[in-house]
Amino acid sequence: MREREWSQFHTPQNLAKSISIEAAELLECFQWSDAADEGALLDELADVLTYCYLLADKLRQDPVELILTKLQKTSEKYPVDKARGRSDKYDRL
Amino acid sequence: MREREWSQFHTPQNLAKSISIEAAELLECFQWSDAADEGALLDELADVLTYCYLLADKLRQDPVELILTKLQKTSEKYPVDKARGRSDKYDRL
Amino acid sequence: MREREWSQFHTPQNLAKSISIEAAELLECFQWSDAADEGALLDELADVLTYCYLLADKLRQDPVELILTKLQKTSEKYPVDKARGRSDKYDRL
Amino acid sequence: MREREWSQFHTPQNLAKSISIEAAELLECFQWSDAADEGALLDELADVLTYCYLLADKLRQDPVELILTKLQKTSEKYPVDKARGRSDKYDRL
Repeated sequence: MREREWSQFHTPQNLAKSISIEAAELLECFQWSDAADEGALLDELADVLTYCYLLADKLRQDPVELILTKLQKTSEKYPVDKARGRSDKYDRL
Repeated sequence: MREREWSQFHTPQNLAKSISIEAAELLECFQWSDAADEGALLDELADVLTYCYLLADKLRQDPVELILTKLQKTSEKYPVDKARGRSDKYDRL
Repeated sequence: MREREWSQFHTPQNLAKSISIEAAELLECFQWSDAADEGALLDELADVLTYCYLLADKLRQDPVELILTKLQKTSEKYPVDKARGRSDKYDRL
Repeated sequence: MREREWSQFHTPQNLAKSISIEAAELLECFQWSDAADEGALLDELADVLTYCYLLADKLRQDPVELILTKLQKTSEKYPVDKARGRSDKYDRL
């Protein structure tokens, strides 16, 4: 990427817009059906992930570290004994 | 996550919807302004990444491998000498 | 539309997905720039609006009525004297 | 709205972002289930519609006119005899 001098376009806002745009292309695999073509799915997931990594990099964060920190917070908000088998938001448990 | 028995809700389609929903929350950090609160930004980015990892896991793929494969394809579509400093789509180069 | 027998695909959920997908195509007009081609913008806005109207129709609601009801609620949440010239959420006023 | 002096925030780009954000809140009604609470659905649909109308107004266009023009184009791309009962894109018919 660096040698294409694209990072000038990679402001945090443009990357956030790009993540939304690519996420919608992923969703499009399921637009009219519950089943999706797996090749297309992987391709679009890769695009979302790529922009997420570029944004993490821009913010000087490690993507996996971000996930682990967040999971830690989630596990505190959703105690196992209350949340088992439910999809409710934590304030409704 | 496993001990909460949430994976029953984690169909590929539900995860794709979740990625779009969290991507929009990330975008919301920039709804009325070009600047965003960095704490909020990291929090929302972590959510998008988490669902991306769950979907990759569901599809038995390694997230970083997906990104690398995609970057390889991109670098073939956008030759350095044509794409330097441009944000055009490859079919307009 | 009726004569194409497409309404079988137009479940509320599929229409909600479609609205998100088309909204992202509208956003794509601004992916790398603050300025957008007006023709493309109108085209994508028309797509979002069309799916919104189809969903309103499915729910037997008048789109303009929905907007007016919502504006009424908003004007109660954001009193003119507090909200003038601010983009804060109502719980921060 | 006018008396709250909010239109300074209502640039086409900010409105496009807002449409995506609200569309995702509409989608959230279906995040973990095929069924949605109708009240919440109508509320979120109203938000998407409101921002669509604000953007149409900004671009000095009539929303219903935009829809009709688009439907005219669609009906030319998807001839009734080919498209009946199918959800394929027009280039696959």
